[in-house]
Amino acid sequence: MKTILYPEKETWQKLSGRPVIGRSQLDDVVRTILHRVRLEGDKALLEYSQKFDGISLPSLKVSPSEIREAVDLVPGTLKSAIRIAKKNIEKFHSMQLISEPRLEITEGVKCWRRSVAIEKVGLYIPGGSAPLFSTVLMLAIPAKIAGCREIVMSTPPGSDGKVNPLILYTAWLTGVTDIFKIGGAQAIAAMAFGTESVPGVYKIFGPGNQFVTRAKEMVQMEGVSIDLPAGPSEVLVIADRTANPAFIASDLLSQAEHSADSQVIFLTDNREVLESVKSEVDVQVLRLQRKTIACKALENSMVILLSSVDECMDFSNLYAPEHLIINTLEAEKLSEKVVNAGSVFLGQYSCESAGDYASGTNHTLPTNGFAKSFSGVSVESFLRKISFQEVSRKGIENLGPVIQSLAEAELLEGHKKAVEIRLKNGENV
Amino acid sequence: MKTILYPEKETWQKLSGRPVIGRSQLDDVVRTILHRVRLEGDKALLEYSQKFDGISLPSLKVSPSEIREAVDLVPGTLKSAIRIAKKNIEKFHSMQLISEPRLEITEGVKCWRRSVAIEKVGLYIPGGSAPLFSTVLMLAIPAKIAGCREIVMSTPPGSDGKVNPLILYTAWLTGVTDIFKIGGAQAIAAMAFGTESVPGVYKIFGPGNQFVTRAKEMVQMEGVSIDLPAGPSEVLVIADRTANPAFIASDLLSQAEHSADSQVIFLTDNREVLESVKSEVDVQVLRLQRKTIACKALENSMVILLSSVDECMDFSNLYAPEHLIINTLEAEKLSEKVVNAGSVFLGQYSCESAGDYASGTNHTLPTNGFAKSFSGVSVESFLRKISFQEVSRKGIENLGPVIQSLAEAELLEGHKKAVEIRLKNGENV
Repeated sequence: MKTILYPEKETWQKLSGRPVIGRSQLDDVVRTILHRVRLEGDKALLEYSQKFDGISLPSLKVSPSEIREAVDLVPGTLKSAIRIAKKNIEKFHSMQLISEPRLEITEGVKCWRRSVAIEKVGLYIPGGSAPLFSTVLMLAIPAKIAGCREIVMSTPPGSDGKVNPLILYTAWLTGVTDIFKIGGAQAIAAMAFGTESVPGVYKIFGPGNQFVTRAKEMVQMEGVSIDLPAGPSEVLVIADRTANPAFIASDLLSQAEHSADSQVIFLTDNREVLESVKSEVDVQVLRLQRKTIACKALENSMVILLSSVDECMDFSNLYAPEHLIINTLEAEKLSEKVVNAGSVFLGQYSCESAGDYASGTNHTLPTNGFAKSFSGVSVESFLRKISFQEVSRKGIENLGPVIQSLAEAELLEGHKKAVEIRLKNGENV
Repeated sequence: MKTILYPEKETWQKLSGRPVIGRSQLDDVVRTILHRVRLEGDKALLEYSQKFDGISLPSLKVSPSEIREAVDLVPGTLKSAIRIAKKNIEKFHSMQLISEPRLEITEGVKCWRRSVAIEKVGLYIPGGSAPLFSTVLMLAIPAKIAGCREIVMSTPPGSDGKVNPLILYTAWLTGVTDIFKIGGAQAIAAMAFGTESVPGVYKIFGPGNQFVTRAKEMVQMEGVSIDLPAGPSEVLVIADRTANPAFIASDLLSQAEHSADSQVIFLTDNREVLESVKSEVDVQVLRLQRKTIACKALENSMVILLSSVDECMDFSNLYAPEHLIINTLEAEKLSEKVVNAGSVFLGQYSCESAGDYASGTNHTLPTNGFAKSFSGVSVESFLRKISFQEVSRKGIENLGPVIQSLAEAELLEGHKKAVEIRLKNGENV
């Protein structure tokens, strides 16, 4: 970890930047995949399975018997744990489904909004080194609460042609409609354009490698919505002299173990805490199974000493971290100053893993500084708010002259006449 | 207008499509503009003013004296009309700023969300044939209610180097922070990247021509958020035998006059209404100042006879119109079936112009079928919802074993250890 002591304010902008990733080569690969899947459908998908996953699939869709098998395979204790996490996530997310009142704006003019679920959504769940069934919880639960009719899921199979049972069990538990054994950019293409087997959807959610991410960005240009632009996962920890350095080190490492490009930043106003945290990281990292990944991530990470916790918060707001842990004496008071962050963890016992799995909040969050303009995934991400208005005869009498005056000033005579004809109540004008 | 009688269901998908616009040439032009503005800043902007608007600007920023002059120029009656529209829009949008309760998910685990305004936003207001000051109302009011700190606005000046006084007055009235005389793709580039004069922003809002739209899509790939993907404006009207054909014709025309590529669709279950509306359109269009534009738009428009109003609603949901007018006997009942639409107008007196200007709802809405996955602009568009969690000692005791179990199953040992070390309360593990 790079240690930086009292950096000048002018250097903050640079310090808070993220590594820039070149991607022109990536673009060609992804563009070809999108093009082929759109043109050839299932045929292209099966060929890519062969090419990238080295398997020949009899069917792209996970069968009911495969799901039953998976449900049987998951141990009971793990099932209970998943159900508790599900209950907590449901509890927190259910609050997000609200109905709004009708407002009488002026006599005879009523306006309101109604939340309506996006009919068809697609969830991408990565394969790779860890079976991220927690991401199934974080995407399928809000989709279900919103009331999405079709919840399509796509995830790469293992070399045996099967999907990890934990992922299947969680998808079954949360009410995913259809599950497909497709990974990579081709999965995004399939859900965006639809194929013989895979239904096309209106919005695609979920994390993935650079191919998946780029494919999501590209289908977005073609009119399919996506949840969030993506980048490597991040944590920023702010701590003062009251914090336990061992706790902080464990939080930094639980982020660092995600991937070699994870971003880990520690800010403090206390020199001793800074040194202790560094020592603790050095000790604890050696005990991790994923220590090679974690060490790699730590190489790009920073420990910064600043003059006060308020200054730490200023830096954090400039950085806009995906996860922000505030481990200070008056964490809640300091948290009132949070302007840019995805999810915030207050106090010494609020470790990031709590939010990753089971506190109830969503773990699909804006990375790469996007917290400056994006929220994490929520029930709202699966809804549209459609506005309604009902204007009565009295209403158009009230509001008509205002509308006419504004339409005339905008030189839109037709807009004015639509009012005029109503005020004259059906006489030809 | 094309007339289609009882089309087969299989043809609906095709009928509900939008014209596809080629854009590879456009891409090169816009890419060059973005690149130059990013590299050369104000110098490039001033050169583009010269080149595209034919004017040599002494300054890109609108001065306080120009604003004062504009405020004096707007007639009192128009000021009152704008203030009434502002009050209505504020009333409807204020309702969207809600604070959510804290939830105790399980003993010792509290979670909540806090709405925080995006700090810096950019509003683009087109110039061209009509001074769209109503769009200033629709963007600046929710930005202000959300609490955005910097509200930057960019709009092309006229050939005299001045901004239309109505636009300046409305921007002043609604609290826009800085106003710039920049139009086209270069305005989007300036707000996305920042220049010597123009502050860079985190999210860009507002309609525009194809260059502006494409520039918004391109800066989105670079990490700047945008409000909505855009396309030509649209209205779909559903009416039954009880509707007044003259009203319907006026609604269709108030959309058609927007631009030659506007989409206008009329659905009914009644043959006589269909014929009367067509006649009314033919008569009314000739009375419009913008009849050339309207006639052009009508060429691409459709009148469709279907077997029931329910079938009309099914078609509408497939089309996903920006504006939907339901002019039927039981409009409210039928409106319960709306799944895909931007803004809905119920009953014979609810003309689209009401929502365009003054009913209180927002007129920045998803076009081009994007209503399937997007909502219109609202206060939420200017906010992020940041999630917070506070886990106490008791909380981690409650939830810790669940987190550990899930982290272990995902093979993320570091995540598990962050809990373990806390359960052991600071002893080294």
